[in-house]
Formats: sequence, structure tokens, C-alpha cells
Amino acid sequence: MTDPIAARRDMANAIRALAMDAVQQADSGHPGMPMGMADVATVLFTKFMKFDASEPHWADRDRFILSAGHGSMLLYSLLYLTGYADMTLDELKHFRQLGSKTAGHPEYGHASGIETTTGPLGQGLGNSVGFALAERLMAERFGRDIVDHYTYVITGDGCLMEGIGQEAITLAGHLGLGRLIVLFDDNGISIDGPTSLSTSEDHKKRFAAAGWHVQAVDGHDPDAVTRAIRKARNVTDKPSMIACKTVIGFGAPTKAGTAATHGSPLGKDEVAGAREKLGWPYPPFEIPEPIFTAWRKIGSRGKSARRKWVKRHAAMAESDRVEFDRRIKGDIPAAVGETIDAFKAKVATEEPSWATRKSSQEVLEVINPVLPDTVGGSADLTGSNNTKTASLKGNTPSDAGGRYVYYGIREHAMAAAMNGMALHGGVIPYGGTFLVFTDYCRPSIRLAALMGLRVIYVMTHDSIGLGEDGPTHQPVEHLAALRAITGLRVMRPADTIETAECWQLALEAKKAPTVIALTRQNLPTIRDAGDGNLCARGAYILAGDASAPVRLIASGSEVQLALGARDLLAKDGIQAAVVSMPSWELFAAQDETYHQQVLGADGTVRVACEAASGFGWERWLGSRGAFVGMKSFGASGKASDLYKHFGITAEAIAEAARQLSK
Amino acid sequence: MTDPIAARRDMANAIRALAMDAVQQADSGHPGMPMGMADVATVLFTKFMKFDASEPHWADRDRFILSAGHGSMLLYSLLYLTGYADMTLDELKHFRQLGSKTAGHPEYGHASGIETTTGPLGQGLGNSVGFALAERLMAERFGRDIVDHYTYVITGDGCLMEGIGQEAITLAGHLGLGRLIVLFDDNGISIDGPTSLSTSEDHKKRFAAAGWHVQAVDGHDPDAVTRAIRKARNVTDKPSMIACKTVIGFGAPTKAGTAATHGSPLGKDEVAGAREKLGWPYPPFEIPEPIFTAWRKIGSRGKSARRKWVKRHAAMAESDRVEFDRRIKGDIPAAVGETIDAFKAKVATEEPSWATRKSSQEVLEVINPVLPDTVGGSADLTGSNNTKTASLKGNTPSDAGGRYVYYGIREHAMAAAMNGMALHGGVIPYGGTFLVFTDYCRPSIRLAALMGLRVIYVMTHDSIGLGEDGPTHQPVEHLAALRAITGLRVMRPADTIETAECWQLALEAKKAPTVIALTRQNLPTIRDAGDGNLCARGAYILAGDASAPVRLIASGSEVQLALGARDLLAKDGIQAAVVSMPSWELFAAQDETYHQQVLGADGTVRVACEAASGFGWERWLGSRGAFVGMKSFGASGKASDLYKHFGITAEAIAEAARQLSK
Repeated sequence: MTDPIAARRDMANAIRALAMDAVQQADSGHPGMPMGMADVATVLFTKFMKFDASEPHWADRDRFILSAGHGSMLLYSLLYLTGYADMTLDELKHFRQLGSKTAGHPEYGHASGIETTTGPLGQGLGNSVGFALAERLMAERFGRDIVDHYTYVITGDGCLMEGIGQEAITLAGHLGLGRLIVLFDDNGISIDGPTSLSTSEDHKKRFAAAGWHVQAVDGHDPDAVTRAIRKARNVTDKPSMIACKTVIGFGAPTKAGTAATHGSPLGKDEVAGAREKLGWPYPPFEIPEPIFTAWRKIGSRGKSARRKWVKRHAAMAESDRVEFDRRIKGDIPAAVGETIDAFKAKVATEEPSWATRKSSQEVLEVINPVLPDTVGGSADLTGSNNTKTASLKGNTPSDAGGRYVYYGIREHAMAAAMNGMALHGGVIPYGGTFLVFTDYCRPSIRLAALMGLRVIYVMTHDSIGLGEDGPTHQPVEHLAALRAITGLRVMRPADTIETAECWQLALEAKKAPTVIALTRQNLPTIRDAGDGNLCARGAYILAGDASAPVRLIASGSEVQLALGARDLLAKDGIQAAVVSMPSWELFAAQDETYHQQVLGADGTVRVACEAASGFGWERWLGSRGAFVGMKSFGASGKASDLYKHFGITAEAIAEAARQLSK
Repeated sequence: MTDPIAARRDMANAIRALAMDAVQQADSGHPGMPMGMADVATVLFTKFMKFDASEPHWADRDRFILSAGHGSMLLYSLLYLTGYADMTLDELKHFRQLGSKTAGHPEYGHASGIETTTGPLGQGLGNSVGFALAERLMAERFGRDIVDHYTYVITGDGCLMEGIGQEAITLAGHLGLGRLIVLFDDNGISIDGPTSLSTSEDHKKRFAAAGWHVQAVDGHDPDAVTRAIRKARNVTDKPSMIACKTVIGFGAPTKAGTAATHGSPLGKDEVAGAREKLGWPYPPFEIPEPIFTAWRKIGSRGKSARRKWVKRHAAMAESDRVEFDRRIKGDIPAAVGETIDAFKAKVATEEPSWATRKSSQEVLEVINPVLPDTVGGSADLTGSNNTKTASLKGNTPSDAGGRYVYYGIREHAMAAAMNGMALHGGVIPYGGTFLVFTDYCRPSIRLAALMGLRVIYVMTHDSIGLGEDGPTHQPVEHLAALRAITGLRVMRPADTIETAECWQLALEAKKAPTVIALTRQNLPTIRDAGDGNLCARGAYILAGDASAPVRLIASGSEVQLALGARDLLAKDGIQAAVVSMPSWELFAAQDETYHQQVLGADGTVRVACEAASGFGWERWLGSRGAFVGMKSFGASGKASDLYKHFGITAEAIAEAARQLSK
């Protein structure tokens, strides 16, 4: 290993060999990308990446995001070679097999060093905006002695064709994220064949148009890659993109440079040919000692930097250190709970009639000052989502500590960036748009659920109650579609007090994303401060007695209708209890006894009401139930007219209960 | 009206006045955009748009797409002024009121001249790619004598920030759609304020990087706009973008140029001030006769062009004319049904074990030759989605008749473009990606459902059965989330014969979009050719007797498991009938008698199985039911391992039935 060029080539070939061998053994996977980007990745890891494989959670490590997640063997190879304890050779040999840490696409939480789950294209690039933004925010708060790292991303053509990728590019360019460096695997191949089949874009001009620093290099020339990354690091006011011209499946004798290496094993003969061509005579999964040692050295090279950091961390002012550690751990200060209790007590006295979006803002007005972790934002609906509080300022290059992000009309990048922020740690992101536009960012919401991230979606205008904007803006199926996502919490508070409780639950859920669905229209205060957080169990009896023969179940703006229906039924001598059900997920987690207490035994008359599709409501209705809600798309008109038009009224609820009670 | 400049100004002011008056009267809406773009729209309609307001469905009309749909009053004003019969002054006066044709955002089908539903930003731009592509395809087939029109689009900053917009831009640039002309309302304002809050993009460079012809003009200089549109029309090998620098809310004395005009009424005083500033002394909703007459002349100016076209149409070779008319009407030739019947008969004999994605390809292999209307495509998964058949060629500028679109990794633009094609007419679009990525194009799928468009989504890899790609690629909640969309048909065929039947139903559904969910893994043929299309009723008894005390209900790849469970139960002496349920929507449309026949009376033991979330399945289970399926996200591994791991087996179904039968 005395010849540095040969050594570097061998180190890159180690990645190539592991990638093609693992894919071959799995008989499934994408060998082309790791083989093509092995040289670039080797330069990045050997020359630049600040990390210590023995302490993968070191807060000031550089982040490496493999946005082109199908090339997962690139990442797994690097983690194994550099010595991450949980990425063993055995894991590589069980690539893509049930129970292994080496899933087809990198899965956050499966092994350390996997900074985010990627595979759905463009998501990693979207995450990286959040990573870099969180880094900047934390550096601004705690200083460059403590927070001083880069975010490196590998993207392919797919990430750049996807809309989410494009949104991320323009957002990052606008924010001027100087520590974000994108290495574009410019191999000219996608699954269908040459990219010329489907795109004619000049990527370099495109990034430049979005305000990026742009370079292009031969991705198989390590010195050129080195120079480019060095230059990119020195550009501090713009994110950097380096287009690395590479040959997909580099080394494969007949398939290199073609789509045949993209998503299938090379085949035994081609693998053998690649060994010959690359000058890699070793058996599958075997890395010769000097090369292995060279890689392991890279894995521990960061130790000294980390130890110095540990000293600097120890030397921080105690209050700063405690605060830094708390934020990295993601704990919520006790002041938050106290503040919310005090807010609830005040609201219970004043009984405001606010839209819950306004309630949400009022909650944030008291939370944001005591919880410096929050980073708010909106996809260009700040005044409608009510996400900006008085103390928050827009984050800009010149005000890098600003805790509010003007995401622009980029719901998808917003959600992906929030995932990145949550993954980075130290900040708690929340962001708003209209509930109907959860569709625009649904892939990122799904990934937040899959990864178990604390991301809070402030989704206002949550029903036909938004009125005149009409069917395109009125969510109907969205509550159902969101509730269908495993691990996502969907909350729909009925008034200001429930809104405060839902916010508290969302902030305290360290490992789950939460959608808070909020109204455009005003709602009365229907709750008292209560004994504790009544929303925590998902549903509870708001009015009436558990022995009542009728349950009227509703969420959000329809709870007041259920209360009205209860009064109507009382006139007929029918006793009904009103159940407020802000969260199916939290209610589902309760035991059968509580379910029976709240919903009554099976056979109890149950009428549920939401100004939304009834899809899925059968779950709670039992054998004697009915649903009052939407059966079609909405319409444009005044909210009050629409509720009548679609038959979502206290009278309709009461009538359904009467019919079932016969 | 002798001074042409004054006349043009007055004509534009008519739009401004109607827009601000209607918004003011509704006390809701977006006046700024119509006021800002009135000059541009006036040039477009008075000088270029080929249309005849008295024949709004003339097949060879130019299409006008208001992608910035919140500026709906621009469109409504133009339709009223030019004399579309159903856009009366009374409709304008009832802007945004329940029951009017003048919804908050333009709703396709509410009034003629509304070419597509817009409002969710970027969708109109995405549609326009499909409009222009359909035009090119039809021109290629029927000649420029018959098909010779342009697609004009107005977009705002929002459309360009959205990922869908970006995907559309790069797709259109690649396809070289020379008859697509985008007028960008470059007003520098979004809802949150100046666009400098959230974007730093150089839009002109961005479009150029995607291969567009780009110009920039003063949007309030009609001559400059005229010259630019003329130039754009002469560029035939590239789509054109004209950045029109405008002042939002032009004419409003204190609010012009600010976000205050974006999404709220101007207020009485500001409206009065605008009247003064614009030199428009007329009362609300009143258009002085000469201006009104000038506009109406524009509405009928296209009559002569249309009459000439009618003559050319009459002079076509009869077979061409009949075919053209059939395609515009959207009727399916009888040969399709016959072909499918013959295919089913053949398959019933051969009993292939194909993945249903392969079945789908085989169906398309016989359909595409007899149905020239189809335009296939895939978002870079051609070989996986099996959407390309032997006779289809890629559509390119030099092969403009190619019926296959390489959409690239742009699911959202694919779906939006398919909406545009369906709206244009003459073609039937189908396009593929993995089922999990319906999330990436969900907003366009929703709009297809809202508009009632025949768009067919070929969504393969429809469960954990896809295996090694793992949780990011395995749909779990997607069937539920799609079924929750009103008006969308979700079909999940169990074998090749059901796949053929589902394709037939999708093609015959002139006014509904259909998702066909297909497997990656092979499935046995379990059906005979049957007596007619058994999938047409959504569910049917596949095996066993209607009198059996147990129903095993499944769709797609799990039907074979239900059949296996039936055998297991038979050994225990429990008689079960297997119900194949390829479509909830079609089954829901059947009457109660059929429901009872298929599902048994309430109290019948029902076990449903899908390798998906059970969300919503309670609907069909009744009081004595169970569901066997996914309770979490998936995992990476072999399909057979995963089915066992997640407990989705014939034995599990049988055991659930045994328990319920006790």
C-alpha cells in the first residue's frame, strides 16, 4: 500500500467487489451505482468525512446521505469497511434477507451510520436541506466550537427528475446552505435505459439557476474529485453541486455503462470478468488485509477530532452544555407542560371562539418562548396556517438563527426537510399547509412514520368548513388516508383546550410524527381545563354519562354538532353521551375496558360524525351504528351553506340516533 | 373604440373590474392575479386564441389552461365577455357561492370553456404537457388539416415552485412540445409576501436549462406581449415560456404590487380607488356597450375558422372521419371486447402462472393493436410495470406518433399529463409505476377522480410480495388510501383472466379513473373464462356455494391463499365459499340482495385477507368477521419469507375462520 494511487484504487475496488458480490448472493439489488460511485465515495470518506465509526452518534459528525438509496450496498460497504460495529460481514452476506440490517434500501434504525431511510427518490436530497439547516441553527445557538459539520449527499438522475428533488434544490439555493454538498452521480443511465430517453436537462445550468455553486468532474479521477470537494467546502454562502461523470457498473466487462447493471445482479460470468478487469483476484466477500486495514484506519481517523470535541463540549458553560445535551437527546423541558396547563386554565376562563388554527397559534405563542427547539414554517400559507409566532424570525443566510422557514410553495420539500431536521437532532420541526395538501407531501409523511420521527404537521382548513375555495381545497378522504399510515398520529382537536393538549402530545411523542388537523372556521370553547390531558387516551366522554344508551362520536369541528344533537335527543327523552375522539391511534392503543367505557358495549347506538369521508369509521360503530359525513367531494360556497347542503348537522346526527334507537 | 390602444386597455380593464367586483361581492377570492394578468390575457384572447364561444367543444380549438387557478375570475370574466352561453353575468355575481358555476377555483364540467380543474398549484402546467402531447399525437394521426391547435398556460410563481411544475417543465422540454406556450405571471408576490422570502430562482435560466425557448416581457405592454407570443408560436421544436413582468392587483391604488391583493377582497375603498385609477367609472358588473361588443366579437371571431374546419372535416376520407369522431367521443371499438373475450378463452386453456403485471402486458399486447387510442408509459419502470408492448414506440419530436411515453422518474408529471391527455380527448392514457408511488402522484389521481377522467394507472409491485426492495417500496396503506378517494376505481385482479376483465372495465369507464394493482410475483390461473365479465360487479363467489356458512374474501395475490384455506377448512368439515373482490367500488354499487348473496347474511363468518392494511375492511366483515393482513410496515426479504413472517397464509385464514365458527 505504498503507492497511494494504487491504494486508493484498491480501496474503491473493495466497495465494488462487496457490492457486486452481495447483490449476486442476494440474487437481487442494484450493483451499478455503488460500482460507479466507488471512487467518489472513497475520496469523500478517506479525505473529508469527519466521523468516528466507534461513536456513530457523535453529534458533530459529518452526515452522509445516500439519496440514491437503491445503491445501498455502497453505504453498507462503507460502514463495514470503516468499522461500524453493527455492520458485520455477515450482514453483507445477508443483504436483502429478512432479519438482516442490510435491507434493500437503507433503513434508518437498522444499523448505525444509516442517517436516514432512502429509496423513494429525491427524499434524501430533501432530507439534506433539513440536515444542513439544523446544523446551521445549532451552530448559531451553540457556536462553531461545538457544531461544525457538513452534509454530503449522493444523488442520481432519479433524485433530480423527481419534483421533491427540484423543490429541495430551489429551497436549498434560496437558504444559501453553504455546508450542503451534493455529489451527483452523472452516469447517464436510468432503469429504462440512457437518460436521453426521458430527459434533456442541463443539470449544471439548472442548479446554477437555483443559486448553487456548480462544478463538474470525472468521477473516476480521485484528484479531481478531491479538488472539487475542497472547493465546495470553501464556498460558504451557497450549497454546492458536483456533477461526477461516472460509468455505471464500472468494471463490469460487458455491462458497464448500461442499464443492465442498474437493478439486477451482474451474473456470475460478469462478476468474474469484473474481478479480472478491476484487478481484484480475491474471493467473494474477502478484503485483503492491507486494504481492510487502510479502510479501518479511515474509520478511526476521526477519533482525535472527536476527543477534542469532547473536551470543548466539557468546557462549555454548564448551562449551555446542559441545554445542548437536552436538545440533542430531544427531551422537552418541564416548562412546556406547565405552560400548557397555565394556558388551558386561562382559556377555560375566557372561553374564546377561535378557529383551531388560531388556537394553535395561541398555543405556539406560549410554547415557542419556552421551547427553543422548535423550528416553524409554512408552505406559503403563513397567515392561514398561523404557524408564525411573534418571536420567530425567518431563517436567512444573514439571520441563520431564525426559527421560521418560509418554505415557499413546496410542501414536499418542507416535509422532507422536516424529516432531515428531526433526524439531525437538536430541533423540533413543525410546518403547515392546508390539510388537502398532505397529498403533496405524503411520501415524506410516510417516511417520517416509517422512521418514527418527531415531525409535526400543522394542517389547517381541515374540511368543507374552509368554504369558498371549493372541492380542490376541501379535504374529504384525507383523514382516512392519513389514519391508514402505520405509526402516524392524526389529531383533530375540537376547541382551543384540545388543541393545546394535542400540541403537548405531539411535542412529547419523541418517536412519532403527528398531523394536527385544524379548522379555518371559528369554534366555541367546549372543554374545561380538565384533569390532565384528556386527549392522551385518544377519545373520552365529553358530555353525558357512560350509562347512556346512545353515543355521539365526533372530532374537531363536528363535536359541537354532536353536543347540539345531544340536546335535541334529550328533548325526545333519549339520553346520549358525546364522545370527543381527537385521535384514533391513541384511542386504539387503550384497552378493551376503556373502549367499552367510552363507546359503550356492542349494541350501543353509536352515531359518528365528521365532515369527511366515513371510510374506516365502521371500526368504531359496532353493529348498531351510523355515520354522518361526506359522501362525495365538496363544493364551493359558504361553510354554513355547505354543512347544510351535505347534511352534516346536529339534526342529522340526532335523526340517525333516533332511527337506530327504534 | 377607434383608438386601438385605448380599446385594448378598456378591454383589459373589463376583466379587472369584473374580478375585483366579484371578489368583493363574494367577500372571498383572489383579485390580484386577474388584475395583474388582464393585459396579457387580453392580448392572448384578442390576437391569438382560436376558439368559438358558441361551440366550446370544437375539437380543434386552442386550449387555455389557467394553472394559477386561484385567479379563476380571470377565466370566468373571459368566458362571460367572449360569450360562452353558460357563463352569465349572474354566475359572476354568484362567484364562490353554492350552486354557481363560478367555484372558488375553476372546476371542469361546471361550465364550458373550463378545460381543466385547477387550484392545487402546478397541476394545470402538468396537464398542459398532456394536452400538447395529445394534440401532437392526434395531428400525427389525422393531419394538420384537422388537428392544428396550441396549448396556452398561465402559471404563477406557485406553479413553478411546486415539484409537479418542475417535473412538467423538464418533461415538456424533453418532449420538445413546440405548441405549448406558458405565460408566466412574474409578479414577484406569493401569499406570504414578496417571493424573495422563499425563492431565489432565476426562472428564465431554469426553463432554458430544461430546453425551453424563453422570453421576458413587460406584461403590461400589449405590443411586447403580442410580439413574444408570435415568436413563441414560430418556435416549433421547443415549448416556450414567456416571463411576463406584471404588477399584482394592477390598478389598486394602495395595494397593487403587494400580497394584500393576493387572496383577499380589496375592500370597498380600494375598489373605488381602483375604478378611479383605471379610468373605469362604471358601476359594479356593468360593462359599457362598446367594450362588451368588442369582447363578444372576439368570442365569435373563430366562427369562420371553425366553419372552414367543419368543411375540411367533412372532406376527410370517411374511414378517417369516422375514426376521428369515434376517438373524440371516446367510444371503444367493439373489437376490444371481442379481443378480450378471445384472450380470456385462450388463457383459460393455457392456465399460465404469470405475475399479474405480466398478465397486464399480455392483455395490452392484444388490446393496443385494436385500440389505437391508447398512449402507454411508465415513470422509468417500463420493464417492471410491463407497460410497453411490442408495437409501441417512444414518443419523440422526430417520432411524434409514438404511443409510448418515457416519463422518466416523474410520477407526478406523468399522472398530471395523463389527466391532460384525457381532457384533450382522442387518446386514452395509461401509465405505470410501483403502487407505493401512487403517493408521489396522488394529487393528480385525486383530480382525475374529481373531474371523472378515464386515466388508467398500472400500479405494479402491489404488496410485500415485491420482496427484497423492502418497506420503502412495499405498499401497505395504499389500497385503503386509494379506495378512500371518491370516484376512483381501485382494481386488484387475482389472475390473468381477472386482469383482462379489469382492463376491459377500465377502458369502458369513460368517466372514471382506474388504478389496476398488479403483482410482481407469479400467480396461478384460478379463473375460467366465465360467463361475461365477472369483475364487473366488483366481487363474486369464485369457489363454493352461496349457502356455505363461511366466506373467505380476498383480492389479488391473496385469493389463492383463500382457496388454500378453503381446502384446509374442508378437511375440518367446515364449508367455505371464496369471494374474489377485485373492486370495492363496483361491489358497493350493487344492490343489497347481491351483497347478501356474495357475503352471506349478517352473522355469516367472514374472513378477509389482503397483504395490506386492514384499514376500512370492517365495512365488509359484518359482526362476525376477521381480517388477515398487515399490521405494520413491511420488511426486506424474499416474498415467501415475508408472507410467513407477517402471518399472511392459508393456515392463518383457515384458523381465523375456525375461531369465528366456534
